[in-house]
Amino acid sequence: MEQMENEIEELIEQSKQKAKVLTEALPYIRRFNNSYVVVKYGGSAMKDKNLQKSVIRDVALLKLVGMKPIIVHGGGKEISKWVRMSGKEPEFYHGLRVTDKETMEVAEMVLFKVNQELVAMMAEVGVKAVGLSGKDAEMIRVKKKEMPGKDLGYVGEVTSVDTTLLEALIEDDFVPVISPIGLGDNYEAYNINADDTACAVAEALNAEKLVFLTDIEGVFVDPEDKSTLISEMDLKQAKEFIDNGVVGGGMLPKLKNCIEAIEGGVSRVHILDGRLTNCLLLEFFTEKGIGTAILKEPLFDKPLFSEDEEGC
Amino acid sequence: MEQMENEIEELIEQSKQKAKVLTEALPYIRRFNNSYVVVKYGGSAMKDKNLQKSVIRDVALLKLVGMKPIIVHGGGKEISKWVRMSGKEPEFYHGLRVTDKETMEVAEMVLFKVNQELVAMMAEVGVKAVGLSGKDAEMIRVKKKEMPGKDLGYVGEVTSVDTTLLEALIEDDFVPVISPIGLGDNYEAYNINADDTACAVAEALNAEKLVFLTDIEGVFVDPEDKSTLISEMDLKQAKEFIDNGVVGGGMLPKLKNCIEAIEGGVSRVHILDGRLTNCLLLEFFTEKGIGTAILKEPLFDKPLFSEDEEGC
Amino acid sequence: MEQMENEIEELIEQSKQKAKVLTEALPYIRRFNNSYVVVKYGGSAMKDKNLQKSVIRDVALLKLVGMKPIIVHGGGKEISKWVRMSGKEPEFYHGLRVTDKETMEVAEMVLFKVNQELVAMMAEVGVKAVGLSGKDAEMIRVKKKEMPGKDLGYVGEVTSVDTTLLEALIEDDFVPVISPIGLGDNYEAYNINADDTACAVAEALNAEKLVFLTDIEGVFVDPEDKSTLISEMDLKQAKEFIDNGVVGGGMLPKLKNCIEAIEGGVSRVHILDGRLTNCLLLEFFTEKGIGTAILKEPLFDKPLFSEDEEGC
Amino acid sequence: MEQMENEIEELIEQSKQKAKVLTEALPYIRRFNNSYVVVKYGGSAMKDKNLQKSVIRDVALLKLVGMKPIIVHGGGKEISKWVRMSGKEPEFYHGLRVTDKETMEVAEMVLFKVNQELVAMMAEVGVKAVGLSGKDAEMIRVKKKEMPGKDLGYVGEVTSVDTTLLEALIEDDFVPVISPIGLGDNYEAYNINADDTACAVAEALNAEKLVFLTDIEGVFVDPEDKSTLISEMDLKQAKEFIDNGVVGGGMLPKLKNCIEAIEGGVSRVHILDGRLTNCLLLEFFTEKGIGTAILKEPLFDKPLFSEDEEGC
Amino acid sequence: MEQMENEIEELIEQSKQKAKVLTEALPYIRRFNNSYVVVKYGGSAMKDKNLQKSVIRDVALLKLVGMKPIIVHGGGKEISKWVRMSGKEPEFYHGLRVTDKETMEVAEMVLFKVNQELVAMMAEVGVKAVGLSGKDAEMIRVKKKEMPGKDLGYVGEVTSVDTTLLEALIEDDFVPVISPIGLGDNYEAYNINADDTACAVAEALNAEKLVFLTDIEGVFVDPEDKSTLISEMDLKQAKEFIDNGVVGGGMLPKLKNCIEAIEGGVSRVHILDGRLTNCLLLEFFTEKGIGTAILKEPLFDKPLFSEDEEGC
Amino acid sequence: MEQMENEIEELIEQSKQKAKVLTEALPYIRRFNNSYVVVKYGGSAMKDKNLQKSVIRDVALLKLVGMKPIIVHGGGKEISKWVRMSGKEPEFYHGLRVTDKETMEVAEMVLFKVNQELVAMMAEVGVKAVGLSGKDAEMIRVKKKEMPGKDLGYVGEVTSVDTTLLEALIEDDFVPVISPIGLGDNYEAYNINADDTACAVAEALNAEKLVFLTDIEGVFVDPEDKSTLISEMDLKQAKEFIDNGVVGGGMLPKLKNCIEAIEGGVSRVHILDGRLTNCLLLEFFTEKGIGTAILKEPLFDKPLFSEDEEGC
Repeated sequence: MEQMENEIEELIEQSKQKAKVLTEALPYIRRFNNSYVVVKYGGSAMKDKNLQKSVIRDVALLKLVGMKPIIVHGGGKEISKWVRMSGKEPEFYHGLRVTDKETMEVAEMVLFKVNQELVAMMAEVGVKAVGLSGKDAEMIRVKKKEMPGKDLGYVGEVTSVDTTLLEALIEDDFVPVISPIGLGDNYEAYNINADDTACAVAEALNAEKLVFLTDIEGVFVDPEDKSTLISEMDLKQAKEFIDNGVVGGGMLPKLKNCIEAIEGGVSRVHILDGRLTNCLLLEFFTEKGIGTAILKEPLFDKPLFSEDEEGC
Repeated sequence: MEQMENEIEELIEQSKQKAKVLTEALPYIRRFNNSYVVVKYGGSAMKDKNLQKSVIRDVALLKLVGMKPIIVHGGGKEISKWVRMSGKEPEFYHGLRVTDKETMEVAEMVLFKVNQELVAMMAEVGVKAVGLSGKDAEMIRVKKKEMPGKDLGYVGEVTSVDTTLLEALIEDDFVPVISPIGLGDNYEAYNINADDTACAVAEALNAEKLVFLTDIEGVFVDPEDKSTLISEMDLKQAKEFIDNGVVGGGMLPKLKNCIEAIEGGVSRVHILDGRLTNCLLLEFFTEKGIGTAILKEPLFDKPLFSEDEEGC
Repeated sequence: MEQMENEIEELIEQSKQKAKVLTEALPYIRRFNNSYVVVKYGGSAMKDKNLQKSVIRDVALLKLVGMKPIIVHGGGKEISKWVRMSGKEPEFYHGLRVTDKETMEVAEMVLFKVNQELVAMMAEVGVKAVGLSGKDAEMIRVKKKEMPGKDLGYVGEVTSVDTTLLEALIEDDFVPVISPIGLGDNYEAYNINADDTACAVAEALNAEKLVFLTDIEGVFVDPEDKSTLISEMDLKQAKEFIDNGVVGGGMLPKLKNCIEAIEGGVSRVHILDGRLTNCLLLEFFTEKGIGTAILKEPLFDKPLFSEDEEGC
Repeated sequence: MEQMENEIEELIEQSKQKAKVLTEALPYIRRFNNSYVVVKYGGSAMKDKNLQKSVIRDVALLKLVGMKPIIVHGGGKEISKWVRMSGKEPEFYHGLRVTDKETMEVAEMVLFKVNQELVAMMAEVGVKAVGLSGKDAEMIRVKKKEMPGKDLGYVGEVTSVDTTLLEALIEDDFVPVISPIGLGDNYEAYNINADDTACAVAEALNAEKLVFLTDIEGVFVDPEDKSTLISEMDLKQAKEFIDNGVVGGGMLPKLKNCIEAIEGGVSRVHILDGRLTNCLLLEFFTEKGIGTAILKEPLFDKPLFSEDEEGC
Repeated sequence: MEQMENEIEELIEQSKQKAKVLTEALPYIRRFNNSYVVVKYGGSAMKDKNLQKSVIRDVALLKLVGMKPIIVHGGGKEISKWVRMSGKEPEFYHGLRVTDKETMEVAEMVLFKVNQELVAMMAEVGVKAVGLSGKDAEMIRVKKKEMPGKDLGYVGEVTSVDTTLLEALIEDDFVPVISPIGLGDNYEAYNINADDTACAVAEALNAEKLVFLTDIEGVFVDPEDKSTLISEMDLKQAKEFIDNGVVGGGMLPKLKNCIEAIEGGVSRVHILDGRLTNCLLLEFFTEKGIGTAILKEPLFDKPLFSEDEEGC
Repeated sequence: MEQMENEIEELIEQSKQKAKVLTEALPYIRRFNNSYVVVKYGGSAMKDKNLQKSVIRDVALLKLVGMKPIIVHGGGKEISKWVRMSGKEPEFYHGLRVTDKETMEVAEMVLFKVNQELVAMMAEVGVKAVGLSGKDAEMIRVKKKEMPGKDLGYVGEVTSVDTTLLEALIEDDFVPVISPIGLGDNYEAYNINADDTACAVAEALNAEKLVFLTDIEGVFVDPEDKSTLISEMDLKQAKEFIDNGVVGGGMLPKLKNCIEAIEGGVSRVHILDGRLTNCLLLEFFTEKGIGTAILKEPLFDKPLFSEDEEGC
C-alpha cells in the first residue's frame, strides 16, 4: 500500500519535472519557429555513426517544430586518403590544403560522397534533404586566396552568397546540405573552409542561429574548471574575452568567426560539443543550454511568466 | 574534486532527462500544430485562483506552439447566488435549473462576468481572447428542452453551431472564450449545459481535441486502484466500458459525451483532472499523458524513431 | 374616365417623387460604400422598443448597402437599479459614477445584458452582430481617470484602441456591438463614458462617419426657432459656434466631442435625434439630412448632375 | 406661428415619404449589386436628346451603385439615310434589310457613329464606356440568315457569344456599348437584329436582368385599359399569355424574346417604356416598378421586414 | 552518288544557316518578351492587300512570341472620298484637314471602317483584336489645335493618354487597334494626326518599341546611296543629323517624332519600309535589322556569346 | 553600279531567307513555351569540349525562350578509370556494371564530378543549374535489379520519381542536372541506366519532349541511304518499324524507350545526333528537324498560314 503511494508520489514528481521542461521549452519553440538555423557539422560528431544519427535526428526534430535548418559539412581526413589513392601526396601550408587541379577534383568527389551520405541519413528519418555545392546555381562565389610566398592553388575565399536557391528549397520544405566548394571568376571550383562557408551562408540568410558542432564543450572562464562554462555572452563580452587573452588555441578563430557572424547579421551563434547526444535540442530548448551562445541581444526581455507565478 | 565530478555527472543526467522529454514532446507539438483544441473548463479548476492561472497559462502555451484553443466555460454556483440576490429562490428539476425569464437574465449576466474574467486573465499572459455567447453572430442555435411533466423554461438543446465567427477570430489569432448560452427560434437566450456546448462546438469544428477539465483523474479499470488508470482507449473499448457497467456515477454522462464527440468528428477526447498543475501540457505532450484519452484512431502508426535508435 | 386619368396622373407624380429621392440617394449610397460608420446609441432612442427596432433596422439597411456599421451603446439608468439590488447606493461625483469593485462588476454585467439584447435584435433583422467589451482582445486600453479631491474608483479614460479585432470581424461581415468598458494596466475592467468610447473607436478606425443618436434635434442658430437647424457646418464654423457662446447646455460637450473626432481623423460627425423614425437613412441619403453634420470637408465638390439636367 | 408648424408638419411628412422610398429601394440595391444588366436601347428613347440623357444618367446611377450595365443599341432609320447618300435605294424583305456588301459597309459606319455618340455621352456623366462591335475579339459569331426565296445578303443570326472581352472590360469598371454586328465564318461583317443581340449577350453572361427599352408601356391584360398593366409574371404565365392570344402586334416577338432569354439563363427580363424619365431606376428600385417584368422566380421569398414592423 | 553527297552537303549548309538565324534571333525574342510594341500603320503598306496581310501576320507572330503589340492606324485618302460623297469638297490648310462637324462625322465613320477591317484580318490569323477610338473610356484627351489665321475646326492635339483600358485589354491577351480620334473638353470628337497618336500612346505606355511603317527605307547618310542606310543611332546622333541638315523632306518630322518619343520614355523607335515583306520580323529579330532604329541606349552591352564561341 | 545592285539583290535574298526561318520557327517557340524538355545527354556529344559547349548553349537558348529544360547525364567510361584507380577491376555482365559497395561509391563520386562540370558550364553561359542525384529529396526511388544467375549488386530499376523538387527548382528558374543514381528501400544508393532515368523523369513530369542525344543520326528506312531519314513517326508507325525488323542494333532499345515514354505521357521523343552543332535548335524550331521524332499526335493540325499566303 505504502509502496503504491510512493510510486504515485514518484509519478507526480516525474510529471512535474516533465511539465517544467516543457514550460521551459515551449516559448523557445515558438520563438524560433520559421527561423533559419545554419549548422556547421564537422569534427568527431561526424565520424561516429551513433553521434551522426543523433545529430541528424536532432536536425529532423528542429525541422519538425518549424525551424529551417541548413547543414554545412566538412570533408576532413577522407580527402587526403583519396588524394593518396589517386597517386599524390597531400600537401598543407599553414594549415591550408595546397590544392592543384587534380586535388580539387578529388576534394569535390569526396565532399560529394560525404554530402550524399548525410542526404540519405536525412531520408531515413523522414526529412527530404538536397545536397548542394556552392557551384549549384552559382550560389557561393569565391576569389582565390592569396598567401604570401606560396601559391595555394584552388583555395578560395567567399566573396558573395546568393540565397535564391536556398530560399526556394527551404520554402518547399527541403533541407539544404552544403559542401564547402565555391565557384571562381573563371567558373572553376575552389576549396573553402567549412567554418567560413557556414558563416557566410548564415550571414547571407540573416540566420537566427549559427551553430558550430565541435569537439569542445564551449567557452570557459577557466578551461581547467568545467564548472566555469559560459552559457551566454554578448558581442562586447566576446570581444573582451579575446582582448583579455582568456581564449586561446583552437577556440580563438572559432570565436572570431562567431563575432564576425553576429556583426554580419546573425542573431545568435552557438559553440556546441557535438559529442553530446541531443546537443542541439538541449542548447536550443533549455534556458541554460549546454554550450556557449554569443548573442546580438538577450532573447527575452523579461521572463514570459514571473518567478512567483512559476511557484503556483 | 570528486564533488565537482558528481555535480557534472548529475548535470549530464539532468540533460539526458530533459532531452528525453523534448524528444518525446516535439513530434506531438508538430502533430497538433494548427489543430483546433476545445477545452471545457469548469469544476474545481475554475474556482481556485492558482489552478485558474495554471490552466490559462497552459492554454497560452498551446497557442504559443501553434494550436488553436477554444475555451467553453461554465457558470456554476455563482448563478444561484445572484438569482437569490435578485429576490428569487433557485429551483432545479432532475439536475437542470428551472429558468424563467428573470433567471435567464441573471444567468447571462453572471456567465458574462465569468467570461470576462477569463478574457482578462488571458490578456495578462499575453493572449488576445474574445468573449462570446452563442447569441453572437447567431453562433449557437437551440431549441427548448422538453422534459415530461415540467416546463424548464429557458433551457435549450443545441441544434446547430455556425463556426464562421470562430474561424474568423481564430484565423486572426484570437482565442474564443464561449459562454454556454444559445439563441432560440424566437431570438431569445437559452441556458445550455456547458459540456454539451463544448461537445457541439468541437464537433462543428471537427476539432482535433476536446478536453474536459474535471475533478476526476480519468477513467480507471478499478476506481479504487489509482494504478489502473486507462491512458487511452478507442471508441469500441469506450463503448464496452459502458456496456460492462465498469463506468458509473458522474463519469457515465461524461464518457457518453466523449463517444458522441468522437462519432461527431472529433479525433480525440481527453478527460483530465483540472486540479493538476500543467495538466494540459502533460496530457498533450507526453506519451502516456496523465488522464484518459478516447481516440478515433491511434495517433502514430509507428514510433517516429525505433527503440533501438533511442538507445544510442 | 376622368377619375382614371387623375389616378394615372397621380401615379406619374408619385413616380417622379420616387425617382427624385432615388436620384438623390444613389450617389451617397455609392459614396459611403465600404465606409466605417460608428453609431453611438443611447438616450431615449434606446428605451422605446419601437424606436429601438427602427434604429436597428436602419443599421441593417446601412449594412445591406455596403457600409460597415459599428455600434457603441451606453448602459444608463439600469446600472443604478442593479447596484441598488446588490445592496449599494449609487454615488455620483460631478456627473461621473463613483465605481468601486462591486459596482464595476455590476456595471459590466448590466452592460452585457444591454449588449446582448442589441445582438439578438440584430439577429432578428438578419444581421450577424458580435457583442464586445473593450477587454476583448485588449481592444480598449484605459488609464484611471484622475479627479482632484475624489477617488472615482474604476472610471477610466481611453488611452488606445486596437482595431485588429474590429477589422477582422467587419472583414467577415459581422457588426460589432461595443460596451463602454476598458482594460486597465492592472488588467482590471474600467467604466468609460460611451460618447468618449464611440469617439475613440471612430478615430482609431479613421471612420467616415460618427453618429451621436441623442434626444435633441441638432444644432440650431436659435434653439427656440426649429427652422434655424444647421444641416452642415465645417470645423471652423463649429469652433466659432462654441466661441460665440451660441451653443450651450448638453450640446456643448457633444459638439466638443465632434470637433475632437474630426481632428482625430473622422470625416463627418452627425448629431441626430434618435427619436425620429429612420433618422439614419434620412440623414445619410438625403441632401439636407435631418440633423446637424460637422464635416472635415464638403462631400461633393459639385453636384453630380447640374440643376438644368435635373430639369429634363 | 401656425404656419411654421404646418411647414414642419409637411417636412416631417416629406421625410416619411423619403424614408419609405429608401427603405423600399435599399434591399433591391443590395440584391442587384454586382449583377450584369443588359439594356437594349432603341426606339424613341434614342431619338429624343433629353430622353437619351435620362437613360444614360440612369445607366450611370446603376453603375454607381454596383451593377454592371451593358448597352446594346440599334441603328434604325439613319442607316437608310446614308445608304441613299451612297447612291443606293434601301431594300427590305419581310422587315429585314437586304444587305449587300456596300450596304453592310454603310451600316457598320452608321452604327459606329451612334455607338460613339453614346460613348461620349457616358463620358459626360463620368462613366468610362467602351464601344464595341461583335467583330471585336470575335465576340459575336454569326451564320448567314437563310430566307426561302430571297438572298438577304449580309444578315446574320448569332451562333455564339464569347464573353471574355466583356468580362475583362467590366472587371476593370468599363461599360461596354455594343453595335449589333457579327463576324461570319468568312471573317466578314454581318448585320444582326439588335433585340436578338441583346438577348444573346444577356444569355451568354447569365445576366441578372435584360431590359428592352421600347415605345410601349408594358404588357396589359386589356391593352385599352392602362390600369391593367402586369407588373410581374413568371415564365408559365408569359407562355399562357401568348397561347391565349392576349398578346399581339409588336409585343409578340418581344415577349417571345423574353421567354427565350429566361430559358437561356437570364433571371429577369423587363419591358419598359423608354419614354418615361428615370424608367430604369423606377423599375429596378421600387416594388411595383413601372413596366412589365418576366421572372424566372420571385425575387424575395418573403418581405425583408413584415408589414407590422413597417408600421412602427 | 556524288549528287547525293552534294545534296547532303547542301542540306548541312542550309541547317547551319538556319541555326545561325535562330541563334541570332532567340536572344531578341527573349529580350522583347512582354514588351509593349506600338506600330503606326499607314501609307502604302496599308493599301496593298498582300502587304496588309504580311504586316498583320508579322504582328500576329510578335504576339505569338510574347510581345504586346498595339496598332495605331491612319485613314488617309478614303476620308476625302466619303466627304465628297456626302456632298462636300475636302479642304486642307498647311497639310491639315479643315474639319467641320459633318467632316468629322464622316472621318470617324471612315476610320472605323478601316479599323474594323484590321480587326477582322487579325481574327483571320487567330489574334483577338479590339478596335478602339480615343473616345473609348476617354482614353485620348485632346485640345483644339490652334493655327494662326485659320480655324481648323475639329483638329486636335493630344493632351493626355489614359492607358487603363489598353493595359486591361492587353492583360487579357487582346490586341488594341486604335483610330486617331480624341475626346475634347466639350466631349466632342477631334481628328488627330496618326503619327502623333502613336507617339503619345507609346510614351504613355513607356513602350519598348515604337515602329513607323512608312514608304521609305530608313535614314541614309547619302539618300542617293542605298548602301549608306543607318541601322542604329542614338539620341545624340539623331539630333546631330537634324542639326547638320542631313535629313530633310518627309523624314524630318518623322525623325523629330522619334526623338520626342525617346525623350518621352520609349526605348527604341524604328523607321521601317512597310513595303518589305516581313519587315517587322527582320527588323526585330536580326542583328542588323532592315530599317533605322533610334535607341535610348544600346540593347546588349556585350554579345551573349563571343565570336570565338560562335566559331565552334 | 551593277555590282551594288547585285549586292542589294543578295541582301534582299538573305533577308527573305531569314524571314522564312523566323516565320517557320516562331510558332514552335510559342508552342513549346513553358514546356518541360528532358535531355538525355551522353555519348560522343559529351566527350568533345566543343560539342559540349554547343549543347550547353542550345540548352541555354531553349531556357531563354521559355522552355524548361532538365538534363540527365551519364557517366560512361570515366567510372571504370576511377574504379581501377581504387584498385578494382571493372566487371560487366550482359552490358550491366556489376556494382559492389566500393564500386558504387566510386560511381557516385565520378558522376558527381561530371554533374558539376555541366553545372559550371551552364553558369558560364548565364544559366543557373543545380546538380542533383536521385537521392536528393528522395527524388528517384529504385528497387534492386534482378538478373537470373548473377547478383549485380547496387544496380537499380526506377520504381517512382517524385517531381516535387524538380518542379520547385524549375519554378524558380533553375535548370536541374540529374545524375542517374537512385535511392533503395534500405536508403542506399543504386546505379541506374541513364536512358531509363531520363525516360522515368520525362514520364513523371508529363514532359512535352524527351530528347536522346546519341551518336546516330536518327531512324532510317534504309540505314545505308542517308536520304531515307524519317523525320516524324507516330506511335503506331514506331511499333510497326520494330515488328517489321527494320530497326535493329543499338537503335532497337532506344526506340523501345521512346515508345515507353510516349505511352507514359511524354508528347514527343526525339532521337538526335549530338555530334551536330545546334542540333537541339534545328530539331525543335524547323519544320523538318534533323533527327527522328516519335509523336503522340501531330503537332499542328493545319499549318498556321497556308502555302498560298506564304507566297505573298
